[in-house]
This record gives sequence, C-alpha cells and structure tokens, in this order.
Amino acid sequence: MLPQPLLRGKRGLSPFIVVTKRLYGTNLVDILGPRRALVHKNTGEPRTVLYGASNTQQVHLRPGEVAIKFLLSPINPANLNTVEGTYPSKPILVPGFDEKNGDVFIGGNEGVAEVVKVAPNEQTDTAMLKEGDWVVMRKAQSGTWTNWRVMNASEVLRVPRKPVGSKVTEVFAATMMVNGLTALGLVSGIEPGSHLLQNGANSGVGQAVIQVAKNLNVKTINFVRDREDFSDVEKHLKELGATHIFPYSKLLDRAFKKEFAALRKGSPTKHAFNGIGGATATAMGALLDQDGHLFSYGGMSKEPLKIPVGLQIFRGLTCHGYWHSRVWSSLSQDTQAEWVNRLTSWKENGEFQDPKHEIITLKGDDSAVGDQMREVLDRLQKGMVGSKLLLKWE
Amino acid sequence: MLPQPLLRGKRGLSPFIVVTKRLYGTNLVDILGPRRALVHKNTGEPRTVLYGASNTQQVHLRPGEVAIKFLLSPINPANLNTVEGTYPSKPILVPGFDEKNGDVFIGGNEGVAEVVKVAPNEQTDTAMLKEGDWVVMRKAQSGTWTNWRVMNASEVLRVPRKPVGSKVTEVFAATMMVNGLTALGLVSGIEPGSHLLQNGANSGVGQAVIQVAKNLNVKTINFVRDREDFSDVEKHLKELGATHIFPYSKLLDRAFKKEFAALRKGSPTKHAFNGIGGATATAMGALLDQDGHLFSYGGMSKEPLKIPVGLQIFRGLTCHGYWHSRVWSSLSQDTQAEWVNRLTSWKENGEFQDPKHEIITLKGDDSAVGDQMREVLDRLQKGMVGSKLLLKWE
Repeated sequence: MLPQPLLRGKRGLSPFIVVTKRLYGTNLVDILGPRRALVHKNTGEPRTVLYGASNTQQVHLRPGEVAIKFLLSPINPANLNTVEGTYPSKPILVPGFDEKNGDVFIGGNEGVAEVVKVAPNEQTDTAMLKEGDWVVMRKAQSGTWTNWRVMNASEVLRVPRKPVGSKVTEVFAATMMVNGLTALGLVSGIEPGSHLLQNGANSGVGQAVIQVAKNLNVKTINFVRDREDFSDVEKHLKELGATHIFPYSKLLDRAFKKEFAALRKGSPTKHAFNGIGGATATAMGALLDQDGHLFSYGGMSKEPLKIPVGLQIFRGLTCHGYWHSRVWSSLSQDTQAEWVNRLTSWKENGEFQDPKHEIITLKGDDSAVGDQMREVLDRLQKGMVGSKLLLKWE
Repeated sequence: MLPQPLLRGKRGLSPFIVVTKRLYGTNLVDILGPRRALVHKNTGEPRTVLYGASNTQQVHLRPGEVAIKFLLSPINPANLNTVEGTYPSKPILVPGFDEKNGDVFIGGNEGVAEVVKVAPNEQTDTAMLKEGDWVVMRKAQSGTWTNWRVMNASEVLRVPRKPVGSKVTEVFAATMMVNGLTALGLVSGIEPGSHLLQNGANSGVGQAVIQVAKNLNVKTINFVRDREDFSDVEKHLKELGATHIFPYSKLLDRAFKKEFAALRKGSPTKHAFNGIGGATATAMGALLDQDGHLFSYGGMSKEPLKIPVGLQIFRGLTCHGYWHSRVWSSLSQDTQAEWVNRLTSWKENGEFQDPKHEIITLKGDDSAVGDQMREVLDRLQKGMVGSKLLLKWE
C-alpha cells in the first residue's frame, strides 16, 4: 500500500513530483500534535458508531493548501442524521485516518477554524489567506469535528474581521453556515417592507431568520409552540428584532385571520418558512397573499405538509423545498464569499446576536473524548439541551 | 327605469347616439325568437335556485357586436359550484334578463355558438367574423346556458374549420375550453420525449391530457381508480394515446417503484398532474425525478395534498396550483387564438377524439326547461352520469 502522502496526490502529477512537493515545509504534526477527530467507520446509531481517533502520520503542505485549527464546531441535528446514514447527503471518507481501522468518516459539517500555516504562494488560492485568519467551510460534510486538518485554500472562505476590537465571535462564525446562511438564503429575495411568516421561530434557523429579516427591513410574524415561558421566548425574539410572536394555538384559531389582517396592514405577505410540517404550515399557507410561497426547510414534527388543493389552485400558493446545502453548493466562490461577508458585517456592526450555546471542551485521550461525545448524545436524546452545542478541542 | 338598450350603452357615447346606433339593423328577436336561458337570481343549491327564463325585449346589434346562437353548452362541475356560490370566480349579472325577476345570472361558462349576424364592419373586431362561423368564449363565466345572445366580437374566438368535410365537431368545440385547453396549458411546457404522470386519468381533463400529450410527443403514465371494468378503461385510454395505465392500488404499492423505473427507461419524468388530492398525489410526487413539479388542478377526493417535507427539501419537489381560467385570462387575444387553433388543428387532423357525452335537448316552455334541468341535477347527484352532459336548445 502506498503511504498516505502519495495516496493524496492528485492533479496528474507523477508520484515523484508529489513526493518532492510534499517534502518542503515542516511536518505539521511536530507543531500541532497528532490529528484528532470524532469519527465513524460505518453509519449507524451515533452513540454506537461514533468514537475518538488520532492520526500521527507526517503531514506537509502542498502548494495551494493551508493548515487550519478548528476553534469551534457545532453539533447540528443533520450531523447526527448523517452519522445514522439517513441524511441524503453523504459524509466524505478520509482514507487511513484511523491508524487501527483505516478509512473513516469524520463527523461535522460546519465550524470556524484559524489558519495556522499557509503553503508558499505558488497558487493564487492561498494568496488570499494568511496565518491568523478565520475561515469557514465551503462544502457541506467537510468533517469539522477534528482539531486540525489540511485543506485546499479554495475549500474555505475567509471570515472578514476588524483587526482590533472585532465583534465577530467564534460562536457566530462557527454557526453561520447552517443557521445564518440558511436564513440569508430564505429571506434575501423578499421585498423590503414585506411581512414574512415562520413557524419554529425559536429554532436556530428561526432566530437567524428574524435577525436577517430585520437587517433587510423585512417584518416577521413568528409562531412558536405554546409553552409556559411564552413571555420569555417573546421577549428574547423581540430583542432579536421579531415584529410579532404568537403561539401555535393562536395561528390555528380561525378568529386569528382578522387580527392578522390588521397587523400586517396591507403590506405584501407572500412568504412563509416552514421548519415543522403539519397543521401550522397549512395555517401559514392560508394566511398568505394570493400567489404566495411556502418554503419548507425542515420537518421537526415529522408530519407531512397538508395543503388543501384549493389553496394551490385558487389562491395560487406554491410549495417549495429549501435545502441550504444544495443552494449553497450551487453558488460561485465569489457569491459564497459575498454571503459570508454580508452576514459577518451585520455581526461586526452589532446587528446579529450569538445563538444561545454551550461549549463542550473535549479533554483527554481518544477513549475519553468518545465518552464525552456519548454523554452529549444521551443528553440530546433526552431533550436536555436547549441551546446550540459546540465542540472545542482542548 | 331606462329601457334595456340604453342600459347596455357604454363607451361614453351620449344616450342619443346609442339609441341611433342601436336602431340600425333588424330586431334580432324577430329572427331568433325570445332569448331563453337557465338562470338563477341568487346563489344556492342548484336544484332550488336554477330555473328557466325568457326575454322578449328588442335586441339590435351595435358596431363591434355579433349575435351568436349556442349549439352546445356543457354542464361542468365548476358551473354547479358557481351556482352554489362556492366557486372562487363569480358569475356575471345580466341586468333585467328575467322579465319578472329582473337581474339574474345565466349559468354556464363554456360552449360553442354559431355567428348568426355580424354588425356592419365599423370596428375591426367584427371584420374577423362572418355568419356561419363557430365561436367559443374568451371569458370564463360568460353565461352559456342560453339559446342566443349578443356579444362583442372581441369576447369570442373563431374556431377554424375546413369549409367542407371538417372533422371539428360541435362536441369537441363545446368542451375544448375547460378540458382541452386546460390540458394544453398543463402539457405544453413539457419537453418532448418526457413522461408525465397523472391521476384521475379517466376524467375529462385526464383524457384531454392524454391526447394533447400524444400530439406533443410526451408519454403519459396514467392512474385511475381500481374498478371492475379496468380493462375497458385501459382499452379506451390506450385508444386515446395513453402510454401506460395502472390502478391506484398499484401506484400506492411500494413495489411499483421498480417497475416504474423500468418503464420510464431514463427519460425525464418531472411533471405530475393531480386532479384528485390525497394519497395518489403524494405517490406521484415521490415517483418524480429530482426537482419535479406537481401541478394540482382539482381535488375530486376532497382530501388535501399530503407531501412529506423531505420530498420538497431533498428531492426538490415543487407543488403548484393550476387554475385554467386564470391562466387563460392572462393570455393575450392572439395567444388565446393560437391555443384554440392548435387544439382544433389536431381535431381537424383526426388526432383528438370527442369525449363520451350525452346531449340534453331542452324542450318546451320555461317551466318545462327548468324541470329538465332538475332531472339532470338529480342524476348528477346520484352519480348516474358517466359522460359529459351538453345542453342544446330545441
């Protein structure tokens, strides 16, 4: 079997040239220590298949590459579905990462990392990046539950920050791709001055939608589960910039239609975002203007969308899906950078709040790290987590 | 109260001029007899509110107008919903039509009529039409359950026919607007060589879709209710040009997926037409290619559309409504004429069959005509009608 560095050679270079190129520069393992990650060999129940693994093989930069050290990597629900093998987009196999078990998948699809080493500027890609820069991943399923790795500079996007006193936080940057950019993708086509509707308004995407909408001068009518602490949720979402917040019981009450007509006061109300499915999605569809659009990006309730055909035929309602990974991967590198810059500039200006979060610091050897992850998964399964979980390697 | 002819004066002419213009030409009632119609004063249960009425007032043509005599006028389900007041598009009030009850609605929204008199050619509109031409209505809810009427020439479209030996039948022309043109609107954007899916394939629209698709070189995979005479239906639909016909039980069977993949043999399958709602619509949506489109034009089952959000998000399924009246009214007069000509040319070439139909000849006085209509409504309610019903005035 060829050693790893040779296996990683692509671009049609002969093995000899690849070896030559890889030999220049330091062995990154000497600086950064072994590569470590939460990995799985097969797909399956996350608690069973996920484990900690390390890799001590020499790593050198090739032209165009950068070494990045992860600062924070979120655990998103879709990451666990990916581990289970039930998510439609598949993880990327990392050849030979686990020195005992060979090829494995590294978990995680988003996160913020710091550039710790840039290959000499033989390719334009790396010219954009310098040591100390923060970067986010261009591709979904990049494998971000790892302490550090080498990537092609074209696979990451720089997060612009003020040199001194930046308000761009690690938490913001780590969670921007799944929540913030999904919200930007959903909201950015909507006419300023309009109202949008959303259910699941207290979710990660929901909170991001409120903030993106506020920054784009779009008003939000938000619906959340009925709950005892409704007034706390209302207060929090209003602080983020929500225009109105109602519990689902109100949305599902026929009498609400009149109140709704009054509060939207004739401004266009053509878009609703559904992260839940079921009755609340139907009710939002029925409140939209003629020729409205209902976008589903999630289905937390596991109930299907139920739409009376009359709403579609006579009221002209169109029901779309929105899969952010797919929208995102269809954008050019420049457009992706624009989206990241746009969102980040709001954060820099104090117009975007960090999500509620909890940082899990991974400590000890591979076995200890695996145990920590299983504890987290247990808490998630029991519904004992009310905020975004982020992994950090000690 | 002003006499009817004055009430009908529009276009900003002074009453004096209107009277002058109306005075030229014959009193049409002298030639054609009283105007007669199936009318209703209020909306409500069709059996209760519909009745026969006559109008004996003088009628003269004004510039731009034509007198048309109806040959056949269908009874479509939507007509009855319009009488009930449950259909979203409202009928047009005919001032003073009923000499006893005043303003009434005339039933019916499509039909074929023969031009019996054209006003002298002072306006270009009438230049296109000559006596003996067949015409169909440009507007929905025109009020076609009548023996004859005067319309502006711009409100009708000429049905092109060979001068001798034309294959264009009255039945075809009378039913073209609701079934044929809906089918053309649905199918015309689909890439030749593709497959389309439809439920309710044995309905009026369903049969028209099969024939339009065949003429546009689009293959159809058709689903119909399970029934004892399935092979008869299959035979009939195959004669119309259907590519495949299956009962709903097959469509709803998970094992069908494999058979389906084989029969469509890799040709694009991006469109499904739903006239039914419920489970068969969902199943069709699940069979479509990535980024498919499910168009609902009806909901015979009265069940809502039920779409798992994953089909929308990950499979990119978009669900649209299709309301033919609305699509049609958005087209220019030229485009409408093109659609009519396109459909009619297929008929002329023997590429379009008449729907199964039954002609109801309305005989006797207003009271007798009303009784006949009530008999028909009773049969419809009991589900004793398996073909398209068409009204003809004796």
